[in-house]
Amino acid sequence: MTFDRTTLPRVDDLTVGILGGTGDQGRGLAYRFARAGQRVVIGSRRAERGEAAAREVAALPGASGPLTGMDNAAAAAAADVAIVAVPWDGHAETVAALREPLAGKVVVDCVNPLGFDERGPYALAVDEGSAAEQAAALLPSSRVCAAFHHVSSVLLVDPAVERVDLDVLVLGDDREAVAVVMALAARIDGVRGVHAGRLRNAGQVEALTANLIAINRRYSTHAGLRVTNL
Amino acid sequence: MTFDRTTLPRVDDLTVGILGGTGDQGRGLAYRFARAGQRVVIGSRRAERGEAAAREVAALPGASGPLTGMDNAAAAAAADVAIVAVPWDGHAETVAALREPLAGKVVVDCVNPLGFDERGPYALAVDEGSAAEQAAALLPSSRVCAAFHHVSSVLLVDPAVERVDLDVLVLGDDREAVAVVMALAARIDGVRGVHAGRLRNAGQVEALTANLIAINRRYSTHAGLRVTNL
Repeated sequence: MTFDRTTLPRVDDLTVGILGGTGDQGRGLAYRFARAGQRVVIGSRRAERGEAAAREVAALPGASGPLTGMDNAAAAAAADVAIVAVPWDGHAETVAALREPLAGKVVVDCVNPLGFDERGPYALAVDEGSAAEQAAALLPSSRVCAAFHHVSSVLLVDPAVERVDLDVLVLGDDREAVAVVMALAARIDGVRGVHAGRLRNAGQVEALTANLIAINRRYSTHAGLRVTNL
Repeated sequence: MTFDRTTLPRVDDLTVGILGGTGDQGRGLAYRFARAGQRVVIGSRRAERGEAAAREVAALPGASGPLTGMDNAAAAAAADVAIVAVPWDGHAETVAALREPLAGKVVVDCVNPLGFDERGPYALAVDEGSAAEQAAALLPSSRVCAAFHHVSSVLLVDPAVERVDLDVLVLGDDREAVAVVMALAARIDGVRGVHAGRLRNAGQVEALTANLIAINRRYSTHAGLRVTNL
């Protein structure tokens, strides 16, 4: 089949939970989904911080979707689709603690295991192969995909940016879950969700964020990727 | 600095050697450089096979640059810039044998260490981190970069394709060598060369070819990547 976004499922009635949603990436995604009218819950380790982030994002121009904040467990329970946006440091612990509320749900890992030193960014080795595969191992009853690795939080959270010019690479073995994530990605103006292989090929997509950061530093930009001939 | 191709060095008088140039990727690159008028030498393990590939590519429409075939050692000696396009299986052995003729030269590794099984393509683990870092370890006197991983050999070798719609990600620590490779990439109509980080970040760029193959299979296409906001 060729790429055809009209075959994607409807997702506008789904609640998107963003776990660790108080970081730059989490708040940026929350804002874009709220702009699209999606119901969004922002989770944090402490409910007050999730609530504060929700108020902050809701105050941005065009954030029409209902936004609420809570702790990560409550956000996981409230979500139809849960995006894991926690720092890599603490990823395993946070994910493992949410096994029950995430059971049966589509879980989207967007975490990039990266290190930084005086020579710049680099990819960290992950025993499981990738953050997403680590999440899949810890959440055997969830439908784990990976996506949203390369979106610039600076662009996401900037109300003046009408259209985010990139494709979201979606990794996953569960075709139905992948289609939901592709449809969700396409809710962000300018974005296509593209199925870019199985979860075992998530590691290099996560690691490639180091290259995009290197490009950003060299050329003073906020780079993204488009898939051509699609 | 912002991305500005006018600052790139002139490379049109350089001889491009393609080592292992009888494979699909090597012949495709040879054709595109010959179309640009670049002098190209195709190397192979056996000189006759290099010569046959050179004749074949020279017969394609528009291949105006002088094309000759020889064995890999002679091609390495004749080249100003040498592109390593051998199969991953045998990469270390071939590269190690060319240490002397490649000394002092810009060497561009474009090898993708991939495996295939019934579930499709996947990235192979490489002890040195990447094929390019393996080459750099084996060629301590060469200026090793990595590039041309994602170009579709099908498109490269198709005379009807006027413009190849993608960016070539160039990895390397030697800024001057990187600029030469970027300029060389830009000799292919439609292509930009983009410095995408140090050589230690080459592994995920090589591995990402598995994702592009997965995209090609899923969507029946020849996908490439463009860097946006650049």
